[in-house]
Amino acid sequence: MGSCVFCDIVAGTAPAARVYEDDDVVAFLDARPVANGHVLVVPREHVSRLENLDPELGASMFRAGQRLARALTRSSLPTDGTNLVLNDGRAAFQSVFHAHLHLLPRRKGDRIRLGVGLVRRRAHDPDATAAAIRAGLDRLASEEKNP
Amino acid sequence: MGSCVFCDIVAGTAPAARVYEDDDVVAFLDARPVANGHVLVVPREHVSRLENLDPELGASMFRAGQRLARALTRSSLPTDGTNLVLNDGRAAFQSVFHAHLHLLPRRKGDRIRLGVGLVRRRAHDPDATAAAIRAGLDRLASEEKNP
Ligand SMILES: [Zn+2]
Ligand SMILES: [Zn+2]
Repeated sequence: MGSCVFCDIVAGTAPAARVYEDDDVVAFLDARPVANGHVLVVPREHVSRLENLDPELGASMFRAGQRLARALTRSSLPTDGTNLVLNDGRAAFQSVFHAHLHLLPRRKGDRIRLGVGLVRRRAHDPDATAAAIRAGLDRLASEEKNP
Repeated sequence: MGSCVFCDIVAGTAPAARVYEDDDVVAFLDARPVANGHVLVVPREHVSRLENLDPELGASMFRAGQRLARALTRSSLPTDGTNLVLNDGRAAFQSVFHAHLHLLPRRKGDRIRLGVGLVRRRAHDPDATAAAIRAGLDRLASEEKNP
């Protein structure tokens, strides 16, 4: 279709430094890395959001991400830790609307302040919040029963 | 054992607002939420790092996280997007050494600047970086063949 850069990478019509692929996913270096070894794992199938992602395909993305994290510690790239991050929706900083999992190698003392701005606070009403989430799960289950 | 707060929550000996559980994982509200509806998904089994996490258990964590993200959009909590984040290792901001996946509901215009400090730059040698990662994957595969 030419309108999705990740589809083009999966198809091989756009360039990327591939590091891993299997039947479900392709992993390649982010073209504008936050850290050396910054990898993106994408499903071969074009899926824009978590809402539309087959859960088994999501599981495959995460399996690949974990495998790559373990591979990093066995590579020549210095790695003291890893962030696995999936941003879903513009409000969550998703910029390419083909679902993707970031793998971000970290080093002690690196300058990446992924957590800056995250002011933690006490939950004001955890019981109500938990009840709201459980109600959402019930709604999801009933949608699945009556599609 | 009493030394791991997430094991205590899984066992029910420490309090938490649970929102979801299945055979593999338990999900509950973060006691110090970054946003309302901030959930943690943990494996029932105590596993400190991605390195030691059974890949199928990791897949279950992600499945639960995705399901909860979909449930949020069906809940009364206002949600325009979600971050799914796993921090592995102290250098990556892991603070509790029982592996956990953060589910962070986001709203348009919220003040959470998860990305602040992430200065993107051009990869200086993507081919060498990709080769290093692939070598790590090969090492991992050969460890698995000769454990
Ligand atoms: Zn696409
Ligand atoms: Zn534990």
